[in-house]
Amino acid sequence: MLYTPPIARLVEELSRLPGVGPKTAQRLAFHLLKVPREEADSLAQAIVEARDKVTFCTRCFNFASGELCEYCLDERRDPTLVCIVERPQDIVAIERTGEFRGLYHVLGGAISPIDGIGPEELKIRELMERVRRDEIREVIAATNPRVEGEATAIYLANLLKPLGVRVMRIASGLPVGGDLEYADEVTLGRALKGRLEL
Amino acid sequence: MLYTPPIARLVEELSRLPGVGPKTAQRLAFHLLKVPREEADSLAQAIVEARDKVTFCTRCFNFASGELCEYCLDERRDPTLVCIVERPQDIVAIERTGEFRGLYHVLGGAISPIDGIGPEELKIRELMERVRRDEIREVIAATNPRVEGEATAIYLANLLKPLGVRVMRIASGLPVGGDLEYADEVTLGRALKGRLEL
Repeated sequence: MLYTPPIARLVEELSRLPGVGPKTAQRLAFHLLKVPREEADSLAQAIVEARDKVTFCTRCFNFASGELCEYCLDERRDPTLVCIVERPQDIVAIERTGEFRGLYHVLGGAISPIDGIGPEELKIRELMERVRRDEIREVIAATNPRVEGEATAIYLANLLKPLGVRVMRIASGLPVGGDLEYADEVTLGRALKGRLEL
Repeated sequence: MLYTPPIARLVEELSRLPGVGPKTAQRLAFHLLKVPREEADSLAQAIVEARDKVTFCTRCFNFASGELCEYCLDERRDPTLVCIVERPQDIVAIERTGEFRGLYHVLGGAISPIDGIGPEELKIRELMERVRRDEIREVIAATNPRVEGEATAIYLANLLKPLGVRVMRIASGLPVGGDLEYADEVTLGRALKGRLEL
C-alpha cells in the first residue's frame, strides 16, 4: 500500500474528477494535507454547500439559488428574447461575451438518438409553454455546432416558427484569430455561406 | 455575476488547488453539480477525513494514521537502513520502484537559506537521535538533485559519518529512455563521473 488509508481514499476520490489522473490526484491530495486546515475544510464545505443550495431555475432550468436564476430575476433583461443552450455552463460562456441581454433556456442536452436522448428527455415542452405564456418574439438556438446541436436547432425551428416566433441560429465560421489554411472544409464552407456585408 | 453564489464559492475554492485555473475550476464545479449527490459528498468527506485522521509518524515523520506509519510498522523491513527524503510524496515515488526495503526519514524540506530554512527547521535533530538510538548502519540521502537537496545531503554526511554510519547518495545521471544529445552538461557530467562497470 502506497498511502495510509485516509490518503488512499482521498486520492481515489480526487481521481474521479474529470481530467484528474492518479498523478494529479496525488499532488492535489498532498496539497490538501499541507495547506492550513481551514483551507481544506473550506473546499469540502463549498462542495457540500453547492449541492445543498443550488437548485434549478423553474423558468429557464439554469442553476439557481432559489426559485429563479439571476438572469430571470434581472428586470433589465429583455424577456421576449431567449437564448436556448444545452447546458448551464454554456450560459457562462455567452455571458462572458457581454453581447446578450435576453433570457436563457437550458435544454439539458441535445437530441441524440444514439444516446437515447429524444425531445422528451429535454426541456422542450417547457420551452413551448414558456414561448406561449411569455410572449417571446425571438429565440436564438445556441446549441453546440455539432450534429446533435444542429439537429436540435432544426427541430426547435420547426416547432417554434408556426407560433410566429423568429428562430435564429448562432453563426458558424472561422474562429477569430484563426487561419484559412488550417480551417476544416465544413467550417470554411459555413463561413462563406454566412458571409456578411462590410 | 457569472455564477450563483454557491457555485461562485465552489469555483473559487477549487481555483486554489495547484494547477487548477479558473476554466478547470469551472469544469470541476459543474461536474460536482452533475454527479450523483453521494459522489460529491464522498469527495468532501474524504477531504475532511484525511485532515482528521492523517497524522505524522512519530519515528520517520511520514504521513500515518496512527503513532507509526505503515513502513515503520512493517517488521519485514530493515530498520538499520534509512532513506532520507524531503517530503512524504518522495516516499511514494521510491516505493513505486520496489527497490528499497528499509525505512524512511522525512526531513520536511531541504536546507535553503534564501527561503529561511536552516537545519533547525528540518527533522535533522530527530534523525540524529534516531541514528544513535536505532543502530542505523546506512542512510541514503534521497533529497532532490538540486542545489538545496545536494547541500542538505552534504550537511547530513558531515553530521552522520563521524557516528560511523555509511552515508550514500542516490545516483544522478541520464534518465532511462533519455538521449545524450539533449542531456544538459551537468547531468551528463554526473553520468560520466558515476559510471559503473558492466
